[in-house]
Amino acid sequence: MALRHYTLDFKLSAAVDSSSTVPELLSIFHEQQMTETVHETNGHGYLGTFVGKNGWLAILRVPSHGLVTVDLQCYEEEDVAQVDNLLNALESKLKVILDGNITRIKRLPALIRGAEVDRYWPTTDGRLVEYDMDQLVYEEDSAFQNIKILHSQQYGNALILDNDLNLAESDLAYTLAIMGSGRENYTGKEVLILGGGDGGILFEMAKQKPKMVTMLDIDQKVIDACKKYMRGTCGNILDNLEGDCYQILVEDCVPVLKKYVQEGKTFDYVINDLTAIPISMEPEEDSTWEFLRLILDLSIKVLHPSGKYLTQGNAENMTESLHLYEEQLGKLSCPVGFSKEVVCVPSYMEQWVFYSVWKK
Amino acid sequence: MALRHYTLDFKLSAAVDSSSTVPELLSIFHEQQMTETVHETNGHGYLGTFVGKNGWLAILRVPSHGLVTVDLQCYEEEDVAQVDNLLNALESKLKVILDGNITRIKRLPALIRGAEVDRYWPTTDGRLVEYDMDQLVYEEDSAFQNIKILHSQQYGNALILDNDLNLAESDLAYTLAIMGSGRENYTGKEVLILGGGDGGILFEMAKQKPKMVTMLDIDQKVIDACKKYMRGTCGNILDNLEGDCYQILVEDCVPVLKKYVQEGKTFDYVINDLTAIPISMEPEEDSTWEFLRLILDLSIKVLHPSGKYLTQGNAENMTESLHLYEEQLGKLSCPVGFSKEVVCVPSYMEQWVFYSVWKK
Repeated sequence: MALRHYTLDFKLSAAVDSSSTVPELLSIFHEQQMTETVHETNGHGYLGTFVGKNGWLAILRVPSHGLVTVDLQCYEEEDVAQVDNLLNALESKLKVILDGNITRIKRLPALIRGAEVDRYWPTTDGRLVEYDMDQLVYEEDSAFQNIKILHSQQYGNALILDNDLNLAESDLAYTLAIMGSGRENYTGKEVLILGGGDGGILFEMAKQKPKMVTMLDIDQKVIDACKKYMRGTCGNILDNLEGDCYQILVEDCVPVLKKYVQEGKTFDYVINDLTAIPISMEPEEDSTWEFLRLILDLSIKVLHPSGKYLTQGNAENMTESLHLYEEQLGKLSCPVGFSKEVVCVPSYMEQWVFYSVWKK
Repeated sequence: MALRHYTLDFKLSAAVDSSSTVPELLSIFHEQQMTETVHETNGHGYLGTFVGKNGWLAILRVPSHGLVTVDLQCYEEEDVAQVDNLLNALESKLKVILDGNITRIKRLPALIRGAEVDRYWPTTDGRLVEYDMDQLVYEEDSAFQNIKILHSQQYGNALILDNDLNLAESDLAYTLAIMGSGRENYTGKEVLILGGGDGGILFEMAKQKPKMVTMLDIDQKVIDACKKYMRGTCGNILDNLEGDCYQILVEDCVPVLKKYVQEGKTFDYVINDLTAIPISMEPEEDSTWEFLRLILDLSIKVLHPSGKYLTQGNAENMTESLHLYEEQLGKLSCPVGFSKEVVCVPSYMEQWVFYSVWKK
């Protein structure tokens, strides 16, 4: 049973005395048979908790500075209308009491805590966002990560790896952006995809008749889940691990890349679609950045001199991480140039940066 | 001074007894000199509040069903590291106590309540989303509405009318979508824009050399604010109320539309970019839907037989509202056909529906 947590806040232009506000509100709580406890706050104003039937809890705070806050928690969904009435009554009364002193009234949508389907997937820059997920379609722990597929009303099914939203069926914009936003022509080309287990890149690329696309993804379970539940992204491309113009190798990309380097094999395009947090089994990965540079270095080594390395970067707001990434590009075994582009990926709820890298 | 509100929730696979969990946690609160009050919940499990120095408040709930919740409130930003330590200690201890019984651990980004710059602008379908707004650039009450322009790191400046986010500088996708996503050619055409005070449509359309664009916006203050602070959207087009190929009339669109109908004036395109909540001064507006149909009817009347009426609809998730809107389209004085398209507008954080309507 989930906990519904409501908030109602009045931001004031001047401080108020709790003795002029609290007494007038008490009758509203009493009507709900809620019992007041007044807490000692050592100079931080009035703090009262009110406990009622059915596990209801309200908190009223009137600190010495100008912010009156109300919290209300209830467990039963049947209580929603009654909670609304209580909050309406408090809001109306506070509007009268605080008239002329109100800068902002804020009553947020309730936080639903402990729900069957989790709807809160914070952005990369740490903001709280509520999604419209309504169903857990699939969940399994593979040898490498926790895999979830959740259904969203507006985004379709969404792939979540280790609690990080990777891609939803609505996110063709991501796939097109990591393929170079229409500036690249894959017809007749040799392409290497690192990761990409959702099949989106492979599916879109196959339409362009490349010579051969090799996709290296470590996790068969991700591929199997996407084949079944992310067909808005991968179409039928994952139904077979190989086709006329592609092969999918279910392998850790690091040793394969090393083998390609040794063999002197090169590609016209290397597309890095690995998850942000590395899951390679190779020992070199002392840190995320070192792993990232290892992949970058190996990728650049297998890149044809006139080829391109394409990858997603990070959220546009992660300026420090983006800066560090661009620093890494300057430390590769071969000098490279790069360009970047900001794209709106529907399910991400934040602007995302994509990179194109080439050998100088 | 804002209130920072933290939550930490453990969803369990089986119920736990509070007597086996709570005592082990008490020392963590005591270390912070927080004083426990145990509340009578009439069978809804353990509910304890802990009040500490500096106005800290913690709530621990261990109800009989399987959900342990912790709330923590503090006022001082300097307390953040200490609060993190407290939550870390609780999380670690609870992981040990509840080992084998944990379905999900959720620790959300803190709600910042009563901050100088408000970052919570819920979606149309009522979801809680936190934006990255960092500055109130402009605020004024016009005769018609409250106008705010807030700066966002990733979206640029954002226009907010009566607390409804209208458009940000990042949202060229909105402007292009309401212009028909590149399917329409405005060169040499007569166009009427209803609303559009941010200047985005006018700016993009002028590039196509239309014969004459007439824009009707009721609120000079919106135009003035956008001219100054939304130049990423309107460029220099609002610097003059008329140009070679356009005129801006600062008027209520309803009487002007009626005058056009009487005069028999027609347009190749009518683009309705009015705010979702109507602010016309005309008496007909008994309800939002009636106002909406009035505008639609008048618009269709001034539309050339081969013309197009283009407008934004609603959030994709507002299926009932979209359905009602489409019903209105069937009730016009002249039969119409329509198509719709879903577009991702960066700052909206929800998928948005746009309509094209034509006379049958």
